[in-house]
Amino acid sequence: MKRIAAGIDMGGTNTTVGLVTEGGECLCEQSFRTHDSASFNDFISRVVTVVNNLRNGLDGSFSLVGAGIGAPNGSYMTGEIVNAPNLRWKGKLPLGAGLASALGVPAIVTNDANAATMGEWYFGSAQGMKNFVYITLGTGLGSGFVVDGQLMLGNDGFAGELGHVTVVSSGRQCGCGKRGCLETYVSAPGLRRTAFELLANSLTSSALRSYAYDSISAKIIAEYAAKGDQVAIKAFELTGEMLGMALANVVALFNPEAIFLFGGLSKAGNLLFEPTKRHMEENLLFVFRNRVKLLPSGLGNKNAAVFGAAALIWKELDKK
Amino acid sequence: MKRIAAGIDMGGTNTTVGLVTEGGECLCEQSFRTHDSASFNDFISRVVTVVNNLRNGLDGSFSLVGAGIGAPNGSYMTGEIVNAPNLRWKGKLPLGAGLASALGVPAIVTNDANAATMGEWYFGSAQGMKNFVYITLGTGLGSGFVVDGQLMLGNDGFAGELGHVTVVSSGRQCGCGKRGCLETYVSAPGLRRTAFELLANSLTSSALRSYAYDSISAKIIAEYAAKGDQVAIKAFELTGEMLGMALANVVALFNPEAIFLFGGLSKAGNLLFEPTKRHMEENLLFVFRNRVKLLPSGLGNKNAAVFGAAALIWKELDKK
Repeated sequence: MKRIAAGIDMGGTNTTVGLVTEGGECLCEQSFRTHDSASFNDFISRVVTVVNNLRNGLDGSFSLVGAGIGAPNGSYMTGEIVNAPNLRWKGKLPLGAGLASALGVPAIVTNDANAATMGEWYFGSAQGMKNFVYITLGTGLGSGFVVDGQLMLGNDGFAGELGHVTVVSSGRQCGCGKRGCLETYVSAPGLRRTAFELLANSLTSSALRSYAYDSISAKIIAEYAAKGDQVAIKAFELTGEMLGMALANVVALFNPEAIFLFGGLSKAGNLLFEPTKRHMEENLLFVFRNRVKLLPSGLGNKNAAVFGAAALIWKELDKK
Repeated sequence: MKRIAAGIDMGGTNTTVGLVTEGGECLCEQSFRTHDSASFNDFISRVVTVVNNLRNGLDGSFSLVGAGIGAPNGSYMTGEIVNAPNLRWKGKLPLGAGLASALGVPAIVTNDANAATMGEWYFGSAQGMKNFVYITLGTGLGSGFVVDGQLMLGNDGFAGELGHVTVVSSGRQCGCGKRGCLETYVSAPGLRRTAFELLANSLTSSALRSYAYDSISAKIIAEYAAKGDQVAIKAFELTGEMLGMALANVVALFNPEAIFLFGGLSKAGNLLFEPTKRHMEENLLFVFRNRVKLLPSGLGNKNAAVFGAAALIWKELDKK
């Protein structure tokens, strides 16, 4: 009987469940809206139903050996979600224990960024690397760090909060309560804020002037940048400058082989990668220049967090 | 026959050799001026002579099992020193191979900050910790990171350059060729630069106004601060602010249990620790507040690098 692991990507909007083989093949997957469940217990039941439906739909006989879950503020150490700002259910949520008990297999929890990092490490372009940084650019900026062959956890399991490194003293207000965090500049909403700052500070004509703040997206800004809109291009340049400078500092601390950019905003491709790489190189300590690769995810449009959550199980089984 | 390891702290000015037991007792040590040797080969011979003299002076019979060396820009991976700015001998220096061959025992090289980190970890206040940061504040700012129970090395062995993280865009000129590096603000010369900036920008009366730039030291500034000199006090406040903000970012990335401050400038005690701790806490992400210890070295006036260099040998023997 072949073995499969459930990889679960729990987000503030959607949750995706996939059944993944040891070789990194996702046999099937299904998504649903996270908050359609009235309570956290209902959510657990929903996950179990989806896992069982997916198993029943498989051709051939498979044995489920475990479930990995990437969740916002998920702790590898306790298996709990702790005060996730983008979930409706507050306090400590016993995600790992709840799923293990309901599914009857081991369940391992980590945060969403670490799950995506594991996916790239096990099944993507970071295979075989011992030192790399993985950055997800979406509604926020998440990050995972592999240091000397280990996923970095830190003393309480909360290491890797690159999005909340202060890059501008008394800068933009952040959802975390601080000011000037990197993710207020480098993320989909950060790009929008930069574009609106440019519209306010300059008189440059731009198609972006006809959009309301609430109706403009990073995708729209990228489309206008590709058409030559000067404000849109400048917004990407400034985003790349902020990210490049932050990455030069990350390199000074971690000396990684590569840095991966993943998530919605990274789909802008060279609009983002080119200025980021240029400003990173300009700010690097001499010894690190032209040594660090800045790469897109090797998983393409696959859900890295589903693969990485499943990889948590394969890694755990490897140990034994 | 009892075992001893040689711990060697090679600096730009002095080199200290100590013979250290497995239990962390330094039986004897001797220092000499690094650049009294005409060539790098002469330097190796000098180290060997000192090690042998120290051994001959010991009461009882001891077996030398290895030599650990902390050296500027020393690489654990290659055993070489690579382009150390504060050594007269340039290019790649085969320190590990040279000493191993001349002494007839294994030799392990690391950089000076990592050696001090190992000393605190094996024999000081960081014993048993799995995640901590060690910062040496002297002529520069060196740092070592223990991450999830491993000394962080990075892809090329150059991880941990906190002193060259950019904290002020287009800020003070640094010896490394960049601008605005943390060590241009937080180090003995950084404190002096801050004091002179304050003398230039304010009209506050201060005893520091009678000193030339070349004749003032961090120790003199600390003495005046202790006597109530407002400029000297403010210089420490600003140094602590810069360090505290940088440490808040370090905590967001590494989630350490503790941060140690070591070296000449750290001897200023609360003049430095109090503002550093206050500004660190003010800038921490909510989840990390009041959780991270800011500590002085537990090795007192002992040479942490000598102990740490010796610990490299004990650690290596432990593995086998």
